[in-house]
Amino acid sequence: MGRPSARERKPYNIDALLDVAVRVFLRRGYDGASLDQVAAAAGITKASIYYHVDGKEALLKLGVARALDALFAVLDEPAAREGRALTRLRHVVRRTVEITVARLPEVALLLRVRGNTETERWVLDQRRRFDRLIAEIVAEAQAGGELRRDIDAALATRLLFGMLNSITEWYRPEGGMGGEEIAEAAIKIAFEGLR
Amino acid sequence: MGRPSARERKPYNIDALLDVAVRVFLRRGYDGASLDQVAAAAGITKASIYYHVDGKEALLKLGVARALDALFAVLDEPAAREGRALTRLRHVVRRTVEITVARLPEVALLLRVRGNTETERWVLDQRRRFDRLIAEIVAEAQAGGELRRDIDAALATRLLFGMLNSITEWYRPEGGMGGEEIAEAAIKIAFEGLR
Repeated sequence: MGRPSARERKPYNIDALLDVAVRVFLRRGYDGASLDQVAAAAGITKASIYYHVDGKEALLKLGVARALDALFAVLDEPAAREGRALTRLRHVVRRTVEITVARLPEVALLLRVRGNTETERWVLDQRRRFDRLIAEIVAEAQAGGELRRDIDAALATRLLFGMLNSITEWYRPEGGMGGEEIAEAAIKIAFEGLR
Repeated sequence: MGRPSARERKPYNIDALLDVAVRVFLRRGYDGASLDQVAAAAGITKASIYYHVDGKEALLKLGVARALDALFAVLDEPAAREGRALTRLRHVVRRTVEITVARLPEVALLLRVRGNTETERWVLDQRRRFDRLIAEIVAEAQAGGELRRDIDAALATRLLFGMLNSITEWYRPEGGMGGEEIAEAAIKIAFEGLR
């Protein structure tokens, strides 16, 4: 999945500019990062950034949308809509890991948004909407006797996706491990446990 | 567990100043936060901060040490040192959740440190040291046939503690759920799975 690093190509279009902006936001924190730093990292002027977007919040929204669009698209896939709830949940877990590994910086940024600006609060709303849709599948699997019922569905969802989301904190593509291996391990732990 | 909020008491001593600093670092991001913001939130002058500490990095180190000291102390507890590896691992998982809930801001800050300064890199080193010690217990439990061996010990540790660490992202003390309920759910999922 390796996409070219920020330094390997000129950010002369919005996609390349977003690649750079996402990395600067991750490195400095969104609050701590300035458009000047994004411009410097991109090797262009701040005026050039304003040619593409309205400012820092627009860069955040577009960057995070790469992750959000991919994650919500999973819920529209046939395997996430048809069949038994547990099978659908497994599919969503596997695809979430795949997207996290393929879109590592964007998913990491999505998860680090705090809520200090209107755009950040919009992002948090989207995250909550995604969590609710997953919790519904978990509750359905519990109601159908496919998952244990002695753990609250919302709590189980948070712990399960907490495990998946942690990938953004420790996964390094150059480490040799693939998304497939991580997805397999996560599915085993989540549904069968470590024992 | 509820400690008084930053606004409820004057930060006239180092402990109270740290309470405020940790919260400001969390809200603005450590990189984005300034000593001026800490001073304003504490209702004291920047000179008063320098009476207590050398500066922003010292505040980070002392704040994060609250979490690190508590977590490393768990590994010295008899229940983490004596007995079967799986029993010890369960104990460490349960105590990690307890500490995360009791020291929520400090553990959250610990997990959000990025590594832009010498202190932050020291924090990352401590986190890696803790992870290695846990991975050793996981590997021991695998070697003894107490845990499944088809998942790499380091990967299993990362996913397991990723799940626990996620508590800092979604737990709200005012939500009514206690650390005990979360610890029970996390132990069930981790060792038995959701099925």
